[in-house]
Amino acid sequence: MKKPWAGRFREKTSKIVEHFTESISFDNRLWRYDIEGSIAHAKMLGKQGIITKEDSEEIIRGLKEIAREIETGRFRFKEDLEDIHMNIENALTKKIGPIGGKLHTARSRNDQVALDLRLYLRAETKEIISLIKKLQKTLLNTATKYLNTLMPGYTHMQRAQPVLLSHHLLAYVEMLQRDRERLEDTLKRINIIPLGSCALAGTTLPIDRGYVAKLLGFKGISENSIDAVSDRDFAIEFLSNAAILIMHLSRFAEELILWSTEEFRFIELPDAFTTGSSIMPQKKNPDVAELIRGKTGRVYGNLLSLLTTMKGLPLSYNRDLQEDKVPIFDTVDTVKSCLTVLNGMLPGIKFNTERMFETAGEGYSTATDIAEHLVRKGIPFRKAHEITGEIVLYCIKNRKQFRELSINEFKKFSPVITKDIYSYIEVEDSVKTKTSRGGTSPDAVKKQIRRLGSLIG
Amino acid sequence: MKKPWAGRFREKTSKIVEHFTESISFDNRLWRYDIEGSIAHAKMLGKQGIITKEDSEEIIRGLKEIAREIETGRFRFKEDLEDIHMNIENALTKKIGPIGGKLHTARSRNDQVALDLRLYLRAETKEIISLIKKLQKTLLNTATKYLNTLMPGYTHMQRAQPVLLSHHLLAYVEMLQRDRERLEDTLKRINIIPLGSCALAGTTLPIDRGYVAKLLGFKGISENSIDAVSDRDFAIEFLSNAAILIMHLSRFAEELILWSTEEFRFIELPDAFTTGSSIMPQKKNPDVAELIRGKTGRVYGNLLSLLTTMKGLPLSYNRDLQEDKVPIFDTVDTVKSCLTVLNGMLPGIKFNTERMFETAGEGYSTATDIAEHLVRKGIPFRKAHEITGEIVLYCIKNRKQFRELSINEFKKFSPVITKDIYSYIEVEDSVKTKTSRGGTSPDAVKKQIRRLGSLIG
Amino acid sequence: MKKPWAGRFREKTSKIVEHFTESISFDNRLWRYDIEGSIAHAKMLGKQGIITKEDSEEIIRGLKEIAREIETGRFRFKEDLEDIHMNIENALTKKIGPIGGKLHTARSRNDQVALDLRLYLRAETKEIISLIKKLQKTLLNTATKYLNTLMPGYTHMQRAQPVLLSHHLLAYVEMLQRDRERLEDTLKRINIIPLGSCALAGTTLPIDRGYVAKLLGFKGISENSIDAVSDRDFAIEFLSNAAILIMHLSRFAEELILWSTEEFRFIELPDAFTTGSSIMPQKKNPDVAELIRGKTGRVYGNLLSLLTTMKGLPLSYNRDLQEDKVPIFDTVDTVKSCLTVLNGMLPGIKFNTERMFETAGEGYSTATDIAEHLVRKGIPFRKAHEITGEIVLYCIKNRKQFRELSINEFKKFSPVITKDIYSYIEVEDSVKTKTSRGGTSPDAVKKQIRRLGSLIG
Amino acid sequence: MKKPWAGRFREKTSKIVEHFTESISFDNRLWRYDIEGSIAHAKMLGKQGIITKEDSEEIIRGLKEIAREIETGRFRFKEDLEDIHMNIENALTKKIGPIGGKLHTARSRNDQVALDLRLYLRAETKEIISLIKKLQKTLLNTATKYLNTLMPGYTHMQRAQPVLLSHHLLAYVEMLQRDRERLEDTLKRINIIPLGSCALAGTTLPIDRGYVAKLLGFKGISENSIDAVSDRDFAIEFLSNAAILIMHLSRFAEELILWSTEEFRFIELPDAFTTGSSIMPQKKNPDVAELIRGKTGRVYGNLLSLLTTMKGLPLSYNRDLQEDKVPIFDTVDTVKSCLTVLNGMLPGIKFNTERMFETAGEGYSTATDIAEHLVRKGIPFRKAHEITGEIVLYCIKNRKQFRELSINEFKKFSPVITKDIYSYIEVEDSVKTKTSRGGTSPDAVKKQIRRLGSLIG
Repeated sequence: MKKPWAGRFREKTSKIVEHFTESISFDNRLWRYDIEGSIAHAKMLGKQGIITKEDSEEIIRGLKEIAREIETGRFRFKEDLEDIHMNIENALTKKIGPIGGKLHTARSRNDQVALDLRLYLRAETKEIISLIKKLQKTLLNTATKYLNTLMPGYTHMQRAQPVLLSHHLLAYVEMLQRDRERLEDTLKRINIIPLGSCALAGTTLPIDRGYVAKLLGFKGISENSIDAVSDRDFAIEFLSNAAILIMHLSRFAEELILWSTEEFRFIELPDAFTTGSSIMPQKKNPDVAELIRGKTGRVYGNLLSLLTTMKGLPLSYNRDLQEDKVPIFDTVDTVKSCLTVLNGMLPGIKFNTERMFETAGEGYSTATDIAEHLVRKGIPFRKAHEITGEIVLYCIKNRKQFRELSINEFKKFSPVITKDIYSYIEVEDSVKTKTSRGGTSPDAVKKQIRRLGSLIG
Repeated sequence: MKKPWAGRFREKTSKIVEHFTESISFDNRLWRYDIEGSIAHAKMLGKQGIITKEDSEEIIRGLKEIAREIETGRFRFKEDLEDIHMNIENALTKKIGPIGGKLHTARSRNDQVALDLRLYLRAETKEIISLIKKLQKTLLNTATKYLNTLMPGYTHMQRAQPVLLSHHLLAYVEMLQRDRERLEDTLKRINIIPLGSCALAGTTLPIDRGYVAKLLGFKGISENSIDAVSDRDFAIEFLSNAAILIMHLSRFAEELILWSTEEFRFIELPDAFTTGSSIMPQKKNPDVAELIRGKTGRVYGNLLSLLTTMKGLPLSYNRDLQEDKVPIFDTVDTVKSCLTVLNGMLPGIKFNTERMFETAGEGYSTATDIAEHLVRKGIPFRKAHEITGEIVLYCIKNRKQFRELSINEFKKFSPVITKDIYSYIEVEDSVKTKTSRGGTSPDAVKKQIRRLGSLIG
Repeated sequence: MKKPWAGRFREKTSKIVEHFTESISFDNRLWRYDIEGSIAHAKMLGKQGIITKEDSEEIIRGLKEIAREIETGRFRFKEDLEDIHMNIENALTKKIGPIGGKLHTARSRNDQVALDLRLYLRAETKEIISLIKKLQKTLLNTATKYLNTLMPGYTHMQRAQPVLLSHHLLAYVEMLQRDRERLEDTLKRINIIPLGSCALAGTTLPIDRGYVAKLLGFKGISENSIDAVSDRDFAIEFLSNAAILIMHLSRFAEELILWSTEEFRFIELPDAFTTGSSIMPQKKNPDVAELIRGKTGRVYGNLLSLLTTMKGLPLSYNRDLQEDKVPIFDTVDTVKSCLTVLNGMLPGIKFNTERMFETAGEGYSTATDIAEHLVRKGIPFRKAHEITGEIVLYCIKNRKQFRELSINEFKKFSPVITKDIYSYIEVEDSVKTKTSRGGTSPDAVKKQIRRLGSLIG
Repeated sequence: MKKPWAGRFREKTSKIVEHFTESISFDNRLWRYDIEGSIAHAKMLGKQGIITKEDSEEIIRGLKEIAREIETGRFRFKEDLEDIHMNIENALTKKIGPIGGKLHTARSRNDQVALDLRLYLRAETKEIISLIKKLQKTLLNTATKYLNTLMPGYTHMQRAQPVLLSHHLLAYVEMLQRDRERLEDTLKRINIIPLGSCALAGTTLPIDRGYVAKLLGFKGISENSIDAVSDRDFAIEFLSNAAILIMHLSRFAEELILWSTEEFRFIELPDAFTTGSSIMPQKKNPDVAELIRGKTGRVYGNLLSLLTTMKGLPLSYNRDLQEDKVPIFDTVDTVKSCLTVLNGMLPGIKFNTERMFETAGEGYSTATDIAEHLVRKGIPFRKAHEITGEIVLYCIKNRKQFRELSINEFKKFSPVITKDIYSYIEVEDSVKTKTSRGGTSPDAVKKQIRRLGSLIG
């Protein structure tokens, strides 16, 4: 097959090189966007009289036919045609003859691939945003359901203070909310049309970039053709957002794994979302959560991959940029599948609310409430903290819980302690009284649910 | 020195551990923000009657005195006091007595350090935005100055088409514009107050978070206390923005290095911004640009560092989070110094405009213009491209430039070629006619300068 | 299809989960090693009487048949069978009946997959070592051919001192030599059999691990079963070696790109290893070198990916480990293709030795030789360096080359300079006299060629 | 202060540039190696008659005096002297006059800094190897002490099979053993002298590189001067080894954190190695382990940092290489402190052996032993696995342990089950019978201890 740029060459491309430089094996997934972009471009060429109306229509007809062929699996992608652009243009020319050769007027693969990638990432980013929203809703529903469930809140993986399970789950809804906001911000910079930049310098032909932008639904037009063909910021931004997103998912996955251990026994995962062992018959493993946690590496790696590729590249387009696709595609797939599977698993999780409640009360988790009781009696917090520390140490030595201390035992640590201290040392009270904004009291948490509910819509 | 949390402990902290866990050696740079936050917190405690007005004022007086001591270098940070928070609180109590112990009421180091970091990053992000703006201005001035300078535009590091030096420089202004926008977007998520989340669950004391937010100029209030103490998204976002920014600078640095070679000779760097060799007396090295390019590694590494630290952490606060500081501080320092030094160097660069013009015309860089000439004659672009390729090959074989071909030689390749082709093959004409939006024609570039000028202000 | 571990489960695995957790779509490439390992395992089970000789032979016969089916493309891998191990075991049981169920005796997928991966990486590492060797040979041949070609040696991308092209190329042979040594070192740690560790604790059955090791050609036996199933050090080591290797290739690629520019014109790449432009007919692009440089990101990303996945995993096997495969496979493919294509391209490169020689003499590249001349006259090197610096500055101002200075002009800078200085300032002399070990003189370079030749064999 | 290379320059270096390019603020820690290298170099210059014996001795005397000044804190490093090399050379010349200017004969900072870095890394690598050894010994002692302690062995963080605590701890000794081996391998490539490569091309002066190598205890001599000044493989290798090492430590840290939770209660950390909370008086936090886990990010980041810096650098020395130091220094410090603090903490850990034993028996952890019992009765493993799965499910439904099943209940699942099954379902028996090599039986573990003991020495 003759290359589209073969005019100046004396030797044929080596087969090794064809195989080494081809991208059709992975960029074929851009076909829908490549054709969509080409149709808009052809319309504009016709409207501007750069090619005739008839030629324009003929090209569009041919492109639509190719789209149908690909959709129905009747199209064969060929490695020696290098990439998705050439595979489609070649098919077009076979279909409609030399007129097909007019499609690439006032266009280069440099701006074309940037266009395809932006169209693709625009669609996938929206899809991911919507998957995040779904997961948020599922979490919000779960949080609403477990509004009365107490559990230990942890810092340093040590039980710290009792909190509501709701409150804990909402923390992830907050993270996901930021993930969505970040993706929306990035969308602004994805949603800009590079087409019309041509190779790097623009064109002498009277193109109408605004018209193409309108046809394709772009919000902005790239304003510097040299920058436009060499810019992959939008892709790195996307990868960086994805890295933060999967970091959040890895934290949730870690907790699901922890909570599924026999030691925690906070949850039981649905059979349909766990797997067994090929050797140990009794095992029920949280594979889904483990894989999500493990896939964090993949997404981080993809981010670093593109950052590395872009480092130190002189302007404008360099072939190195072809290496943007695999990390982007892999990240899109990974993130979507993690969100989907988590969302599918969540409703089936059985929360062991009794066990959660029981453990919420262990480990002197209301010590801070005792300290705040002392503060209300006028003791400086530092001193109050110290006194409470001594009470805790006393309890540990004597294997007692706070409620098992007599008022006289309490008073030995500080005479200001009064009987109403018993209304602060039970976990239910501890939670109920954390009414500060963002805090764990049922009222505060209900407000959080309402706010997030309205943000998720 | 007794630890603030020593009440419950029977053994003293090991010296190795003190040294291993301390952060004062690097977090002391947060002192200004720690005191600023504490003053606002103390005001609120007084206003809400959680402590007395007098105590509140006494605390604020003490804190201000400490601030003056640090500012004037009279303060000694101590490792056994762990971190900036305890160093300051300890000094406060020494200064004003047990009342100092009231400052930490309704506050934990978990929300305090998150506050300090956000205050710090808010200030530094604004500073970096302003340094970017400065560099944009300098580049814009240079672009305005060299509006008539032609140079070769490159793809694949091969001369592709002639462009304006202005146009090329403006590509960097565009990149920096996106860098600024990204930082502004991140600022929205930095500018949220976490204080009042306490350890993780909120507090039973009647705090007023909105008041503290107002005092400290925050735009938002964290709505989930568990999330607030374990969230470092804003820091990762910042690091990711910094990574993209330094990637841009690395590309510019690479070009400065290339252009300074004897082979390119496009620019001469100012003596004051280059260094020599300890062994080769004739050398003049672009060290500044090399170091900027080299420091890309550092910023990428810092991004990965925090991402790795956050991977798989269960909620809420874990001590791992202390590892956020060094990568953030190092990134802030690196990015600021790179922007500053580039901005200082730029005005002293001597552009060798003659050499640029001369090379712009070599290498058949107007071949695309010939192809577009053929398109205007009705030849499909693909065919036009092929014909031009043959012309180029002919020229190479016969060591001729386009202008040296007679009209008959031209016509041998295609009879449709007419004499006006000679008005397209000179680089000046090539540039002048690239009038498409974002293109390299002087008119298009002037529009870009105007638009960027108004964005930079 | 019933899962091999389904005994204890009440619900069927969700389809989403099957798709999310499957690895057969990528681990099918391990089939050869999986079967090889299973055959050795079955032999041992028979020899030890854990299963009967007849069963053992039947199993082996079945496995060999499956191998032939896969080899000839007649085998269909199924996603609902999860992975390569279950696909093959399932096919075995279909083929030979319930006896197939005896193969997995005293084995778990945990040690089985570790075995497969080690067998795979052992083979691929050896293959890569041999590809490196080939590239070294090609470079060595080129170096031998261009033993008389002078070129500028660069530091800071500035011409520093004249060197032999040979010498420069040999630097890459040295790097590749270290790459080989590193891979050999890693091979020691790859070449250890984990099979027999079972799930994590070993087995109660009387297996003979030494026998299996011998059958499979392993040099060592893993000595702790808990470690053996959770260890991926060997894979990370491999990825790290690959990262350094591709870093070397990226440096070479960068030089090929630079040298191909019209500005350097040091080399011309073979047509068969370059590509053209879809819009600019005159272009000839060093795509192969650009892609190698770009793929550096991919390999770095893969390394980081696995490191991230392994971070903080408790013992022993966790499903996260499944994420080791994609980065390993992708790295193997990338590195092999880069080595192959470079090796293919190298012999076709045309070195423009005239241009190299000519530029070697520009830029006062023998200034250090003047300084060393002064040293031989007893002047301290620092002073000699300073004097030479002044000579260079004088030459630049007066647009002269060293050879154009009269002896009196020289003496103005230092009276100790004698006429024999003229025998040091020509590039040929400069190179010839750098006879220190490892230096650029033809004699020193010949020694390097001989040494490397014997190392490469 | 006049720069050593100022001869050719007309303008003074900008202050911003001095600050931007200086490395003395961090490379001063190389002083010992810089002086050690210079003394050896000066000895050689004297021996070879390149400078006089007297000058050589004078230089060495001066250098030794400077060493004493630095050691005793009387030396002031100056930023405007750029780096450690110039700070010392400058001090030397101040001390002994112009003779000091002879030290830099036949040497460049390019080979000098490579020398210093190799000397530094050689010493630190040996130090780290010895710290690893210490930690191995401590672990080995602990393993020996707890040879009779049973605990649950985990896969997927689910209890899988009972194992010996010893066996589990030895898994880390194995990892550390590989870490040591890797560092030893890298040491071979660190321990090569680059000095004598000069700027990049060698020298015309009659140096004796072998003599310097012998004086400094190097095992090899770099054989290509161009490679020698631009090679940082040894540093990347070191960083990569460190990344794997801290990954291991992060896994151990994760387990210490898990085991310290109230949910696991497997260990109690010594007070001296934990810290408390500034707000919650009852807390005792595993900060040391958390920080080790968190610092993984830092070391991974450092590895990526240097890899990024090296990507695509043309030969030979580029100033980018200066960025190698900070990641190396930070990694050395981090890894050493983590090893030290872990080693300090380990002997103080209280293992809750009762709790471990108790949990080892829960969760049907001997199910695999039942399956192997069935295998011994001739049932194919797959079938045996399935039957055991059904037994487990039956036990879960009826809330029974294996030992609570009557022989008739057992036989309902398979008639081949015989009474001796009761001698396999207790955890002690399960462990005792895992006698396969590397397995968890006391005998197998004792062999592991002996082997590791002899390796550690």
